[in-house]
Amino acid sequence: MTVSQLHKARYAYIPRFPAILDEPIESIAMQKEQETASIANTEEIQPLFPHIYGKPVVHFVKGTAHIDKKPLRVGTILSGGQAPGGHNVIAGLYDGLQKANPNSKLFGFLGGPEGLVIGRAIEITGAIIEKYRNTGGFDMIGSGRAKIETPEQIAGAVETVKRMELDAVVIIGGDDSNTNAAVLSEYFVQQGIATQIIGVPKTIDGDLKYDMVETSFGFDTATKIYADLIGNIARDANSAKKYWHFIKLMGRFASHIALECALRTQPNICLISEEVAEKKMTLQQITDIIADAVVKRAVRKENFGVVLIPEGVIEFIPEMKQLIKELNEAMAQHADTFNTLETFKQQKAWVAQHISPESAALFASMPEDIAAEFLTDRDPHGNLQVSRIETEHLLIGLVTKRLAELKKEGTYTGKFSAQAHFFGYEGRAEFPSNFDTDYCYALGRTIFVLIANGLTGYLASVYNLTAPPAEWKPCGIPLTKLMDMELRSGKKQPVIKKTVIDLNGKPFKTFAAQREQWAVETAYIFPGPIQYFGPSELCDILSKTLLLEHEERIHP
Amino acid sequence: MTVSQLHKARYAYIPRFPAILDEPIESIAMQKEQETASIANTEEIQPLFPHIYGKPVVHFVKGTAHIDKKPLRVGTILSGGQAPGGHNVIAGLYDGLQKANPNSKLFGFLGGPEGLVIGRAIEITGAIIEKYRNTGGFDMIGSGRAKIETPEQIAGAVETVKRMELDAVVIIGGDDSNTNAAVLSEYFVQQGIATQIIGVPKTIDGDLKYDMVETSFGFDTATKIYADLIGNIARDANSAKKYWHFIKLMGRFASHIALECALRTQPNICLISEEVAEKKMTLQQITDIIADAVVKRAVRKENFGVVLIPEGVIEFIPEMKQLIKELNEAMAQHADTFNTLETFKQQKAWVAQHISPESAALFASMPEDIAAEFLTDRDPHGNLQVSRIETEHLLIGLVTKRLAELKKEGTYTGKFSAQAHFFGYEGRAEFPSNFDTDYCYALGRTIFVLIANGLTGYLASVYNLTAPPAEWKPCGIPLTKLMDMELRSGKKQPVIKKTVIDLNGKPFKTFAAQREQWAVETAYIFPGPIQYFGPSELCDILSKTLLLEHEERIHP
Repeated sequence: MTVSQLHKARYAYIPRFPAILDEPIESIAMQKEQETASIANTEEIQPLFPHIYGKPVVHFVKGTAHIDKKPLRVGTILSGGQAPGGHNVIAGLYDGLQKANPNSKLFGFLGGPEGLVIGRAIEITGAIIEKYRNTGGFDMIGSGRAKIETPEQIAGAVETVKRMELDAVVIIGGDDSNTNAAVLSEYFVQQGIATQIIGVPKTIDGDLKYDMVETSFGFDTATKIYADLIGNIARDANSAKKYWHFIKLMGRFASHIALECALRTQPNICLISEEVAEKKMTLQQITDIIADAVVKRAVRKENFGVVLIPEGVIEFIPEMKQLIKELNEAMAQHADTFNTLETFKQQKAWVAQHISPESAALFASMPEDIAAEFLTDRDPHGNLQVSRIETEHLLIGLVTKRLAELKKEGTYTGKFSAQAHFFGYEGRAEFPSNFDTDYCYALGRTIFVLIANGLTGYLASVYNLTAPPAEWKPCGIPLTKLMDMELRSGKKQPVIKKTVIDLNGKPFKTFAAQREQWAVETAYIFPGPIQYFGPSELCDILSKTLLLEHEERIHP
Repeated sequence: MTVSQLHKARYAYIPRFPAILDEPIESIAMQKEQETASIANTEEIQPLFPHIYGKPVVHFVKGTAHIDKKPLRVGTILSGGQAPGGHNVIAGLYDGLQKANPNSKLFGFLGGPEGLVIGRAIEITGAIIEKYRNTGGFDMIGSGRAKIETPEQIAGAVETVKRMELDAVVIIGGDDSNTNAAVLSEYFVQQGIATQIIGVPKTIDGDLKYDMVETSFGFDTATKIYADLIGNIARDANSAKKYWHFIKLMGRFASHIALECALRTQPNICLISEEVAEKKMTLQQITDIIADAVVKRAVRKENFGVVLIPEGVIEFIPEMKQLIKELNEAMAQHADTFNTLETFKQQKAWVAQHISPESAALFASMPEDIAAEFLTDRDPHGNLQVSRIETEHLLIGLVTKRLAELKKEGTYTGKFSAQAHFFGYEGRAEFPSNFDTDYCYALGRTIFVLIANGLTGYLASVYNLTAPPAEWKPCGIPLTKLMDMELRSGKKQPVIKKTVIDLNGKPFKTFAAQREQWAVETAYIFPGPIQYFGPSELCDILSKTLLLEHEERIHP
């Protein structure tokens, strides 16, 4: 295997982690807080998890623990989209296991949760670990998006853990995977299966955040990559002075990525989906916000700019949600008629008669090529594939149209030319930043301690992250504590609740206090690429989100 | 101005440069080689540049120089697309000027060559220089794509240099800008205008390469950024195992960027425009090469991959060139009829009757949405805007179609799902790599020495770049030496010749020797982001292209 110079150098990096986790396992004492309740809907959630509900948060301090140091057999799963640092969670877990008992074994399920269901696994040996320490990607064992929900899937998982005689299964994943972990844990306890289940908060989206879970891993690295690229584009824009760059950023549900990138780079505009929903903004209002900045900057002869767009923003615009719903219904009901229509003109006229006047007006206001996407990008059930709508092009089209109107009115005399970008995949498999490298390794070591203490249905966490890593605090949080009931495919289900941007929180308010200035002035900041070696002030930069939320905790 | 931590740290970086350039100007002796001839067409080019043609290449060594250390007044222009390091060319020039005589003055023309024509300039003071040392972008004075060609433009330039009493004008730009520099230099000498003209080889595309010009600045940084992102996407692909990523890379004319990125990351496929042209490849052949790799990897259960596509490849496919030409002619001749056609179906039928059967067959073979682009993306003269054709989507469409055929034939049973990317702007304004930081600063110091020695019509160059910077060799190369005659808008003109990939050169051959293996196996390398601080083996990585071409010079 040929590896790059940086790859080689990263192998030699020694992650920093909480001092307490470096103690022998028999010197790490577990302290229990009081019993916990779910975030909301306790009366509905408690009965669904009679065996694992309400357990205490646990902390670890120096002391004495009576731990059976028998060899353990642990399986691990990487679930869902890649996030930088996943390999180090596994490396930390491996080191923890080996340190306590070199006869312990770690297994990796291949291709995500499906690996557990069908029993496809490899032993993760020391030799494998050495090839993946401090690296990005999930390629050590692959990932997948399958769930473990149906009776058949659960039966498969049961068979696998029994056959492999696993003491524990670690699910490294997002909200859905951790929900899965809770369900599986409850089921195992109920069935008298001794295999413990531990979850880990993974997602570049940054929307797994709770008391004592300060960030999900991967967010730090991914946002640093996007912010670097945004800074470069902003600098390019300010050099060429001829393009407005519309940059869509991964993150369908929450806008933490966009907000963090905005705080790091100070673009002219950054849309925040949570605000769009809260203020019930219309597509026209969003268009006007951007067009207004274009007009004001044109007065300064600055016919260029940068707009950040969270991937999912379109689904947060109430009138768009309504339009999408009506289109889905109309096209599902009359699929046969619709399919006979040859031209977009005919389709458009037909649509206008089958949806509400408000939705028809909105549909008519959209640029034709994007409106056409609304009719063609359909899944086998006839539903619009919202994630395929090119929001960045939609907004460019609408802003172009609006500016033409303003030009006619004589209130705009600038030039407008736009470029569209989408940043996503390039941020998910990078070598983790030192922060994510350390954080993930610490999570891995924490998982081992949770397992050694016999816990199940817990999320591994490490907090106090603004302090030096030696002072970080490992803990275990009952998964049910993070749950709420939500409608999923028309059914109310218990789920690990995602944390969206708090519009009263310090990160958003810090942004909101400056954005009017950024909209008009050229206030770009250029973060540059992630640095791994060199002075600490370059290599250990914490995310703005983490720092601002920390300040808020200290000075609410 | 708020700056990032890395930005602040880069201010403190001290560029390394040839030891000879650190001598006082009176100790830098100029050595002349013999007279030079243009690359080709000497009999046509010589008469066009009677005053500046054929001058010798000049080198600089320790010795004695009789240099009038009078204060100089120098103007500089940043021309064309951004390339990391431009600011350091200016910083090096500034330091050279100041060291020889603190009363010298440096001016910057705003917004590219137009600034010279209309006389829009600022004095580049020490305070300004300090704000831009070692940074990316061209935002110190902006850039532009205007030319200085028409009599009016040249008259404007003359007026400006006279009014500002400039001893020299430095044009930092690509092939066209350096052609401009030669024309202006010749004109000035002919007219008895004492202002010297010096050019500098700038372009991320890497296609300004000649004897003693080993690379253009910006290529190193830009390719490192793209290679980092490609590596990330490759690692993501190898983790999720479900997408083929089609990545288009900036560089319309030459494929140096794609080749360098391929050598750094070992993707499954990398198209090389020069090879496509040389082998007269068809669109179907290119499609088959990709489809073949998809099929072979599917057998290995690897339904994912990475394909690199040079931005301009479509223009190098002979049959596509022909199709574009015929479409342009047909639509120009019958614009009125064509514009009455409402549906793409009608347009397609009409087109089929107005172009050759071969071109019509090719047009019919393309996916409809891309074929439609060929008819709609037209400039005001009715010509196709080739740069707007989404080659990555075209190839995805064709490969999808081909795989469906193979599936029917029973020779392919895999899954194919693709993602498209375009990397360009994000690589042009990054903080220059240490190499580009040093190289550009050295170029700037060299420019000063060329000016001090009274030269005009010269390109500043620094070579021996695989040695430590102290041993790099500054020189001046007559611009006419780099010229050839080319057809431009139907007129034969003298131009600085671009250097395309040599299919017999070591970079291409190194790639070609391994690509069949890369196509099938998963041999990705993950370069990681540019490192500026830390061990030299991470921070001073030279481009593969530079290293391989150096090896070739030593062992041809």
